[in-house]
Amino acid sequence: MTKMNHQTRLPIREGRDSLTPRPLTVRRSVNPHAPGSAHLTMGRTEILATVSVEDKAAPHMRGLKEGWLTAEYAMLPRATTDRQARERSLQNGRRHEIQRLLGRAMRASMDLRPFRNQTLYIDCDVLVADGGTRVASILAAHAALHDLCDRMVRAGKLSEWPLLHNVGAISVGFVGDELRVDLDYAEDKVARADLNVVATSTGLLIETQGGAEAGPMTTEEFTRLMTTGVAAVQALMVDLGRQLAVPPGV
Amino acid sequence: MTKMNHQTRLPIREGRDSLTPRPLTVRRSVNPHAPGSAHLTMGRTEILATVSVEDKAAPHMRGLKEGWLTAEYAMLPRATTDRQARERSLQNGRRHEIQRLLGRAMRASMDLRPFRNQTLYIDCDVLVADGGTRVASILAAHAALHDLCDRMVRAGKLSEWPLLHNVGAISVGFVGDELRVDLDYAEDKVARADLNVVATSTGLLIETQGGAEAGPMTTEEFTRLMTTGVAAVQALMVDLGRQLAVPPGV
Amino acid sequence: MTKMNHQTRLPIREGRDSLTPRPLTVRRSVNPHAPGSAHLTMGRTEILATVSVEDKAAPHMRGLKEGWLTAEYAMLPRATTDRQARERSLQNGRRHEIQRLLGRAMRASMDLRPFRNQTLYIDCDVLVADGGTRVASILAAHAALHDLCDRMVRAGKLSEWPLLHNVGAISVGFVGDELRVDLDYAEDKVARADLNVVATSTGLLIETQGGAEAGPMTTEEFTRLMTTGVAAVQALMVDLGRQLAVPPGV
Amino acid sequence: MTKMNHQTRLPIREGRDSLTPRPLTVRRSVNPHAPGSAHLTMGRTEILATVSVEDKAAPHMRGLKEGWLTAEYAMLPRATTDRQARERSLQNGRRHEIQRLLGRAMRASMDLRPFRNQTLYIDCDVLVADGGTRVASILAAHAALHDLCDRMVRAGKLSEWPLLHNVGAISVGFVGDELRVDLDYAEDKVARADLNVVATSTGLLIETQGGAEAGPMTTEEFTRLMTTGVAAVQALMVDLGRQLAVPPGV
Amino acid sequence: MTKMNHQTRLPIREGRDSLTPRPLTVRRSVNPHAPGSAHLTMGRTEILATVSVEDKAAPHMRGLKEGWLTAEYAMLPRATTDRQARERSLQNGRRHEIQRLLGRAMRASMDLRPFRNQTLYIDCDVLVADGGTRVASILAAHAALHDLCDRMVRAGKLSEWPLLHNVGAISVGFVGDELRVDLDYAEDKVARADLNVVATSTGLLIETQGGAEAGPMTTEEFTRLMTTGVAAVQALMVDLGRQLAVPPGV
Amino acid sequence: MTKMNHQTRLPIREGRDSLTPRPLTVRRSVNPHAPGSAHLTMGRTEILATVSVEDKAAPHMRGLKEGWLTAEYAMLPRATTDRQARERSLQNGRRHEIQRLLGRAMRASMDLRPFRNQTLYIDCDVLVADGGTRVASILAAHAALHDLCDRMVRAGKLSEWPLLHNVGAISVGFVGDELRVDLDYAEDKVARADLNVVATSTGLLIETQGGAEAGPMTTEEFTRLMTTGVAAVQALMVDLGRQLAVPPGV
Repeated sequence: MTKMNHQTRLPIREGRDSLTPRPLTVRRSVNPHAPGSAHLTMGRTEILATVSVEDKAAPHMRGLKEGWLTAEYAMLPRATTDRQARERSLQNGRRHEIQRLLGRAMRASMDLRPFRNQTLYIDCDVLVADGGTRVASILAAHAALHDLCDRMVRAGKLSEWPLLHNVGAISVGFVGDELRVDLDYAEDKVARADLNVVATSTGLLIETQGGAEAGPMTTEEFTRLMTTGVAAVQALMVDLGRQLAVPPGV
Repeated sequence: MTKMNHQTRLPIREGRDSLTPRPLTVRRSVNPHAPGSAHLTMGRTEILATVSVEDKAAPHMRGLKEGWLTAEYAMLPRATTDRQARERSLQNGRRHEIQRLLGRAMRASMDLRPFRNQTLYIDCDVLVADGGTRVASILAAHAALHDLCDRMVRAGKLSEWPLLHNVGAISVGFVGDELRVDLDYAEDKVARADLNVVATSTGLLIETQGGAEAGPMTTEEFTRLMTTGVAAVQALMVDLGRQLAVPPGV
Repeated sequence: MTKMNHQTRLPIREGRDSLTPRPLTVRRSVNPHAPGSAHLTMGRTEILATVSVEDKAAPHMRGLKEGWLTAEYAMLPRATTDRQARERSLQNGRRHEIQRLLGRAMRASMDLRPFRNQTLYIDCDVLVADGGTRVASILAAHAALHDLCDRMVRAGKLSEWPLLHNVGAISVGFVGDELRVDLDYAEDKVARADLNVVATSTGLLIETQGGAEAGPMTTEEFTRLMTTGVAAVQALMVDLGRQLAVPPGV
Repeated sequence: MTKMNHQTRLPIREGRDSLTPRPLTVRRSVNPHAPGSAHLTMGRTEILATVSVEDKAAPHMRGLKEGWLTAEYAMLPRATTDRQARERSLQNGRRHEIQRLLGRAMRASMDLRPFRNQTLYIDCDVLVADGGTRVASILAAHAALHDLCDRMVRAGKLSEWPLLHNVGAISVGFVGDELRVDLDYAEDKVARADLNVVATSTGLLIETQGGAEAGPMTTEEFTRLMTTGVAAVQALMVDLGRQLAVPPGV
Repeated sequence: MTKMNHQTRLPIREGRDSLTPRPLTVRRSVNPHAPGSAHLTMGRTEILATVSVEDKAAPHMRGLKEGWLTAEYAMLPRATTDRQARERSLQNGRRHEIQRLLGRAMRASMDLRPFRNQTLYIDCDVLVADGGTRVASILAAHAALHDLCDRMVRAGKLSEWPLLHNVGAISVGFVGDELRVDLDYAEDKVARADLNVVATSTGLLIETQGGAEAGPMTTEEFTRLMTTGVAAVQALMVDLGRQLAVPPGV
Repeated sequence: MTKMNHQTRLPIREGRDSLTPRPLTVRRSVNPHAPGSAHLTMGRTEILATVSVEDKAAPHMRGLKEGWLTAEYAMLPRATTDRQARERSLQNGRRHEIQRLLGRAMRASMDLRPFRNQTLYIDCDVLVADGGTRVASILAAHAALHDLCDRMVRAGKLSEWPLLHNVGAISVGFVGDELRVDLDYAEDKVARADLNVVATSTGLLIETQGGAEAGPMTTEEFTRLMTTGVAAVQALMVDLGRQLAVPPGV
């Protein structure tokens, strides 16, 4: 499906340049039971995120003055090009790695003092995967948290806005010698280096994950990837913020 | 959310009478990786179904002249009013009961000789649950199978139409003394008897499941539930068929 | 072992006509530790059922005015013609489907108000399987519950008889064009339609399970199966009741 | 139920002296599907044993000139005075310890060369437990193996008798200062030392298991337990052999 | 690596005679977090043992006047000549058999009244296995318990010495006709009979485990193995005691 | 144990400045069964690493011209200040995250073409944990791989040196405003930002993991952490290389 450059044997981007992410669309309040939710597409990648608030402190937070937030990430069996057995997908290491990143990113974004003795669960389920599911999950999780906070504030259940930072993420990598932003699956498979950058809308860094399994890079190359990623996240958050500003049901 | 009749303490239906199911919408070919798929809503209940074709015979079908079809059913953690732990939902007995029903219903609908040495997996994932998820899953599974067959026939991969029957399902029950079709969650909780009827568009019966945990009923009452259910499935299949007739991408 | 009709390639019944179930024998109070138990044979099928009463409310019944009853069904590894691995038999879907049916049938038979803050566990273990293990398990479970109630009433621990209905079950199916009652394994494998009917000794219906995987049937055929099944259960319950009337130790 | 001596607070034996085991009864060929089986009672303890022969070499025996024999031991949930959860009983350490002993004992008794490229599975399921289930399982397993061999020899499938030794087992212990043979549950709980002796009908020793958790004993005491156990097994095997000599169906 | 006698095809011992165990070295207080620990080598076999004291009564000891002690035994994946998968090693039956022996041996050695409402966990992890890991684990567990008691007494947390017996263990077996003490892996594989003897430094017996899978032995042979084992344990405990007498950090 | 600065409530380093890692010691060839192994201490943290070579291609490498390398990481139950249950430690997400990092780092260091149709397993087991176990595991894994390669080259089993890069790792973080290298457990708990840097002895970067859960940082701060980490790894690798240069057995 993806066109390839016959000389370099690298995938060609059509309709976007190397620094432009795929189109992003988000709908909020998509789940009638959850207090916060979002459906997000980024190219063909499609994520459903919900936030649940449980009135029970996490074991290690009992007696403390703030709540806890944890995240789960899973793929539907046919999110991928081949079907994956349901039981196996729950035990796999990649899933654990991603949901730990997701949890850290979202905890970094939020003041959890208003949720004392409560636990927030964010569930990101991948309906369709085409590369970048971990960064799309962070964006969807942010959208679902934003939906939760907005509805709680409107309903008078929160007196202050608890999101300290608008946190998003993007993947950046070298495909051949070209630095590209937001790799799809075909690009990701051939990238020489691949970094996931989690950052704020104000250009601060939360975390990076990944690097150069195919061979090391210089610290300069790494810094270039990282700063390009941070700038791309800033641009993405403007787009996302505009879409989230519309109240649900409008 | 559901209005209740204060005298009988039973839920009131608004906008539909006791024999009318909730509005049904279906979109096909919603998953770019799967050869057949459908997204179905029935009131607030929302199902995503995919079909996968694996080139490997099921162990008990090796050497036989036809393929096998199996089905899986699962709920996302926040499909329900309270969040359910992911690991538990995979082991629970209700899930096994439903996916066995789903598999039998779909095998009854299809000629599997063209799929010799192959196994078809149907995955029904409940995105939102508001009662009737097992019958909605049967409808979504039929839609996904229909999508598969239609695309294979158009692509010349199948010479004959393998769906022997258009199989659908509906729930019927007594809420108080009233026979109601397609119970939502609030109705299901108070129903005196509750039957899932799996039938064909031509008015033949495939299977019934359920009955009267709250107290037995007469064989006449049961027959009335069953025949009402068969008629309701026939009507539903006209609606569903009309929506499926539109080719994907239109 | 089973004789076959060479023309129709269908199993021949010897010593019983098509509407007669296999001989049923039951012994009660067979387990010295359990407050209720029964050993039941139905042809070659052999079930051991025990009832246990735990002084702990099920989580969803806490604070309510009645107890809960749950059931488990399992096969010994060599209950079947081939040995089955022990661990697998616990996770299989068929087992879950059966034990849910068993639990619903027994809850429908009983007033659980005298067991407030308690949980009744019925364990049905298949020692030998030759078809009809799910209906034989319902009969054995009824016998074990009957044993429990009789001993509790005699011991003055219950002031009223809590069994509201004598609940039994039978399988009915079409073998070729012949409607047969209580299919053994050889018949079950070739039946065109196969229905498990759970009913009371007074001819009321609790639940039906199953139908027509091999091809749909008319609603008239279904009704005929169902009403024949209900009548067969009534006859069986007379036989079972006579055997259970003898006090244990006589 | 067990009477206690008020002075010593130790259980009193009624109807048997300290060196006499409980009455033993065995029935063979009790399972119509298994090629060898036995039902054994020893006092109130009750075991069902089956032998299955699988036409597949165990992984570590591939290419070797003899087959393999393995054993499984499990309790039904209500074999004991309190009900035990089914899943837990499969993972518990006591079960593993017993089934390893059972496998070693039975392998020591048998020439497995006629079973090349095959695996024998012995399943011992405890229907009722009242002490001594591990030794009763060894006796039941021997009876089931004997049934297998006898039926195979009669059917001409084996040309030579493959049982090299008639292997049985008994428990012996000190209850107070008294050496007792075949402890029931009440005795086992208060015994100062408790030894399971696996031996042959000719007075040779296969294995001992157990000893003195409540405090050490002298080597003389241990030797006395062991030799008394060996003599008791010899006597038991005469009784068991007489019961097994009757062909099945007589 | 092990030299073989070409005539008998049995391993030759170099540097030790048939009654001499392999050299034993022990270091105590090797884990900075655990209140008791030991690292033990016996030939090439290498064990790390720790004791943990949890301030929580075991379920079956609640309300009683003494604590509980339990033990776990596991091998690192590459402790053996071939790597073993980590998950499998936790479920295997041999492990359960060994850790039950370990727990019984250590409970027999200790007065647990000073540990009321507490649970002691002994973890024996095999870093390298070359035969005799179960007896080496008992020796290492004793050393770790000794370290715990010594440090608690010195710190004034215990007023009396709670070790009632110095408990050790050794394997003994017949290699050909020769009775050998402390078999290594090469010897263990060819031994005709193999017994693990758990005993005290004063020559009393705690437990024996094992025997004669390869063919039965006489009671005289068994007694010879057992008494030789007890004597060997007495000698070992002198050596071990001398090494443990040195306070940690010296 | 760790001294604290009373004013800042931050841990004080004794005997090393903020840029100096804890003392590192490594011994190679410590496991007699494994073809490569190492025991490494870094302060109180203690790791045992082994390499196993299995003659079986990983499923996704079948038919390709190079082998595969995978890594496992686990803690002994009492590696930490409190004991952790063995089964839980295998399923936890942190473990999965670390072993994926470990695998990527080691694959990046090595030419796997000489290991075609083989799979290398690196097992890193934490004997004692005091912070930095993931970077210590990378160092220990490198040492074990180095041991494997050196022994294979000396034995003539490899004609060329397959380690493309000497890969090591270090943690860096801000404790208060101070950038510190190689945080121990007490420092790690209070660090404002914490980064694990995987790099080569030549100053190239493989991967970074982690960041700023406690609040975002600037890209300049991140770059400072990263470049300081790379320099620290270079220094560490000189020390490690010197220790590894000594052949085993010397």
